Amino acid sequence: MARVSQEHLDARRRQILDGAAHCFARNGFHATSMQDVLREVDLSAGAVYRYFSGKEELIGAIVTEVLDEIRDAFEAAALRQPPESPDILVEQVMRRVLATGVGVRAGGPVGVARLLIQVWTETLRNEELAAVLRGGYAKVSGAWTKVVEAYQEAGLMRADIPAGDVARTMIATCQGFAAQQALFGEVPIDVLQNGVRALMSMGAPSAVGSEIS
Amino acid sequence: MARVSQEHLDARRRQILDGAAHCFARNGFHATSMQDVLREVDLSAGAVYRYFSGKEELIGAIVTEVLDEIRDAFEAAALRQPPESPDILVEQVMRRVLATGVGVRAGGPVGVARLLIQVWTETLRNEELAAVLRGGYAKVSGAWTKVVEAYQEAGLMRADIPAGDVARTMIATCQGFAAQQALFGEVPIDVLQNGVRALMSMGAPSAVGSEIS
Repeated sequence: MARVSQEHLDARRRQILDGAAHCFARNGFHATSMQDVLREVDLSAGAVYRYFSGKEELIGAIVTEVLDEIRDAFEAAALRQPPESPDILVEQVMRRVLATGVGVRAGGPVGVARLLIQVWTETLRNEELAAVLRGGYAKVSGAWTKVVEAYQEAGLMRADIPAGDVARTMIATCQGFAAQQALFGEVPIDVLQNGVRALMSMGAPSAVGSEIS
Repeated sequence: MARVSQEHLDARRRQILDGAAHCFARNGFHATSMQDVLREVDLSAGAVYRYFSGKEELIGAIVTEVLDEIRDAFEAAALRQPPESPDILVEQVMRRVLATGVGVRAGGPVGVARLLIQVWTETLRNEELAAVLRGGYAKVSGAWTKVVEAYQEAGLMRADIPAGDVARTMIATCQGFAAQQALFGEVPIDVLQNGVRALMSMGAPSAVGSEIS
């Protein structure tokens, strides 16, 4: 009995979060009211306020969930041994971030990307959420730095550049691609994979000596 | 006389825009009131409302200015003949975006990056600004696609990948790096240049055949 009840509570909480994510992805955190959320999930105010005290708590729950899923996606991609090459890594991350979890529930790749850039601006004014973001980023950048070190140890990448710089750049590529989805609409993830693959094909720039390529 | 007067008007307008950019970079578009802007620029309401009808118009002017400067930076970097390599291009763009114009006036690299991610979310709810963003992006991506075509024609990059995909990826790298500045504080631009340079050193991934590297 208790177990069923907990399942019911979880399902209801999930329903509210998904409805709110839809609203936020469509209209933004600030332009969305609790009334909009109630309409979207088709529940009474009493039912919703039993789970969330108000919009700020809903935003906090969704931001945390989005950030956790993104951190998981980056960390999972970094686990493979031997590590995948950068073009594969970014493809795996973007596919998981945009096509699963909140991504699907927020209305597809563009929905989650729209949520994501709002999550970013939200952390500018909310220190608690900013700390969640920083913590997740520290883990992700640590995991990706290890991947880059593995490239360098295997002789696949020039080793005279700090691995952390490369990790940061690969993460930036994913972040920017997500921003493009939010701003300009859906683009196949292959575009990013192709782009990274083409950059990799260039070899070391001539300015630093052809012996490195 | 008329000329002096126009200069005075322009300078006053500039002063208001810069003060507002400072406020917005610090506290965000939504949490900043016109009172905050008046205090920042140390002008009376009458003086400020002579130039801008309200916060929305101020936001619109700043968003347009930021987007124009970013478009110019991307376009200028693409003008060099023969084109610079990708690691140099991204460095040039980021230096110009973060270290000049609105960048300086908004309180340095982190200030303009904080403005930028707010500009992005603002375009989600404002079709007029979204159109400015899309127009600028179309120009930038056209200019960078030409640069990528030049790499491919010169045999510097594998030519079997659509040039537009690579342009989009290079732009994403800059966008993501700017987001990181906003979210995690200032990072030397060399980090991005190093990262792109290291990716370039990898050669074609083995999965697509070593003959391409």
